Amino acid sequence: MNEKEIEIAEKDYQFKSEQRKKEIDYYKNKMEDIGLKSIDRFVSYCPSPSDYMKNKITYAHMDLERIAEAIADNKPWAVISGLNPSTPLHLGHKAIFDGLLWFQNQGADIFIPITNDESYVVGKSKSLAEARKTAYESIIPSIIAMGFKSEKTKIFVDSDYLDIYNVAMDISNKITLNKALKIFGIHESLEDENPGTMFYRSAVQVAQILLPQYEEFGGPKPTLVPVGIDQHPYITISRNVAEKKEFIPPSEIITKFLLGFDGQGKMSSTRNGSAIFLTDDPNSIDKIVKSAYTGGSPYREYQENHGGIPEICPIWSVRTYHFQKDNNIGEKCSSGKILCGQCKKEAIEEIKDFLNEHQKKLPEARKRIDEFILRTPIKSKIAFLTFSFKF
Amino acid sequence: MNEKEIEIAEKDYQFKSEQRKKEIDYYKNKMEDIGLKSIDRFVSYCPSPSDYMKNKITYAHMDLERIAEAIADNKPWAVISGLNPSTPLHLGHKAIFDGLLWFQNQGADIFIPITNDESYVVGKSKSLAEARKTAYESIIPSIIAMGFKSEKTKIFVDSDYLDIYNVAMDISNKITLNKALKIFGIHESLEDENPGTMFYRSAVQVAQILLPQYEEFGGPKPTLVPVGIDQHPYITISRNVAEKKEFIPPSEIITKFLLGFDGQGKMSSTRNGSAIFLTDDPNSIDKIVKSAYTGGSPYREYQENHGGIPEICPIWSVRTYHFQKDNNIGEKCSSGKILCGQCKKEAIEEIKDFLNEHQKKLPEARKRIDEFILRTPIKSKIAFLTFSFKF
Repeated sequence: MNEKEIEIAEKDYQFKSEQRKKEIDYYKNKMEDIGLKSIDRFVSYCPSPSDYMKNKITYAHMDLERIAEAIADNKPWAVISGLNPSTPLHLGHKAIFDGLLWFQNQGADIFIPITNDESYVVGKSKSLAEARKTAYESIIPSIIAMGFKSEKTKIFVDSDYLDIYNVAMDISNKITLNKALKIFGIHESLEDENPGTMFYRSAVQVAQILLPQYEEFGGPKPTLVPVGIDQHPYITISRNVAEKKEFIPPSEIITKFLLGFDGQGKMSSTRNGSAIFLTDDPNSIDKIVKSAYTGGSPYREYQENHGGIPEICPIWSVRTYHFQKDNNIGEKCSSGKILCGQCKKEAIEEIKDFLNEHQKKLPEARKRIDEFILRTPIKSKIAFLTFSFKF
Repeated sequence: MNEKEIEIAEKDYQFKSEQRKKEIDYYKNKMEDIGLKSIDRFVSYCPSPSDYMKNKITYAHMDLERIAEAIADNKPWAVISGLNPSTPLHLGHKAIFDGLLWFQNQGADIFIPITNDESYVVGKSKSLAEARKTAYESIIPSIIAMGFKSEKTKIFVDSDYLDIYNVAMDISNKITLNKALKIFGIHESLEDENPGTMFYRSAVQVAQILLPQYEEFGGPKPTLVPVGIDQHPYITISRNVAEKKEFIPPSEIITKFLLGFDGQGKMSSTRNGSAIFLTDDPNSIDKIVKSAYTGGSPYREYQENHGGIPEICPIWSVRTYHFQKDNNIGEKCSSGKILCGQCKKEAIEEIKDFLNEHQKKLPEARKRIDEFILRTPIKSKIAFLTFSFKF
């Protein structure tokens, strides 16, 4: 390497090191600001923590103790985790559902609201119908194919499970608009909000989080909401409302975001080159991985000597989350034992294998949708049970 | 009468004259401020205007021409008028439903949303269930007993006809929260609003007004919304949204409020001594009528000479709206030919007769609820019709 090259390589390494520091600080500071606890203690007591927990990808929580107690006492508890169906699931979603599967194996009932109302009101889908179609044609089959047990999984699409709006109305007078706006920090941009978005965010979302505690599902119970750290405001509102409704304030667990292949932050379906979808043609993914941003150096020689910065690398992120959970790929990278070309090649194979396996299961999964769909009418507090007029 | 008595009588007469002037000005100014037209022209062309119109109780409108055209061309049109079921219907509601009946006889399909969500979120009912019970046990039977035709009447209770929330979500991105707040003039009291109330007022109410124009009911059509003049903001929002959804902007017709027996403004179920309910025991109403505020004088002699001020008198209001439509009771009052005692006595008889007749019809009406309930699922724009997953 000539001097010029060394200078470039060092600048790049320094930039990526700073990126790593920012990333680490972001999660650490957010955790402290919000008042979350580290998951370490839970992991040390848990007989079989998930790989995500062991790898500190799932890293922080609020009131997870309540869940641990329910598990220990063999009492009912629930996990609720929704998503908006503007696109099929991508590898970032898979990380969330891996977490749900682990919780189901610990005994949780899993509620999965598919929020096509959200997709529509925030402008990510052209109509409720468009997002609904994606939900049934792609998302729900993918969830089923991941191996959830139908007897402990309740999936619903908001525009079909309209009872959720009765629940939203039922809880909506426990919070003021002003408080919701403050919690979301959207005082400045009130003009841009529509009533649907506001209602979705401050009432429907809360209704979904508190739904497992309605009588129809056995009444108040510990409920865990796995979220990204930017979604904490929903938990704050839900905990406020829970107290006023004599429900148990929901617990929260935070998983760090899977990185998008474009190196622009969390994997997202809205940025080109960021996501691989579970329904993508396995033979079409080479390009996105090969052209992905990485934690490596522009110079082979430099990387061999100094290693890469795995913590900011989408390839490392995807492999660690999904395929090399026990095998510390990060160490190989930071010690220079594996370079980006080889790592990408291996990643491509892992992703292809996964997609092939997953997609093989979809036709069978599509036939089983019905087993998973929640249809329980919510009557408590909404319809007088003693009143005989039937619907 | 001694001097002191004359002074009191004149002061009272003057006060009530001013009250009349305020009343007249209020309706006149509101009409002009909002840009409504007088109903006179419509009445002069209409082959058989309603008594309310002839008596200028129904007095102003916006775009009634569109409705007149539909009637003339024998094209479909709809009327939508909802109410919140926090209490049984009172005589003030009866005035509204008399109007709806007249419109039905002119060919309109009548949509009647019973908004138990509104009752609950604004704090008029303790739960959705409580207001729902009132709807089925009392309000819907009363509506049926008034003589609506089931084939042209679609009644629904919001918490049972949940499709209304899909429609609300469908239209909710056509308005901003800020615009809704401005239209309602509630910028100052944002803190006190809850998301349910905001969503109800800016989206659910609009959904109800636009519902007759969805494909399920034959698509866009002239729609008339009979309202009190304080409800004009709902029409403004609905007209805005209608244009963005390629619906026909709804027309509006204003009926002046029936006066409450307490003399404190429009008849209202929230003030004691204001309302007589259609389900009140006919033998219990003497007291509220006898102790009612009137347009008469405290001195018989004075009233015989000067007459009363009927336009501000609840007794005159109830008799003119409901029982003496063609018989100008107001003239008799203002000319001193009838005094309050006699007028109240006659009113008591009229109200008792009406209540007896009405209540006789309720048991039969209760059996017919099912014929009137709207259950049509709203799929257009919400579910892909080509998509086969069934609910």
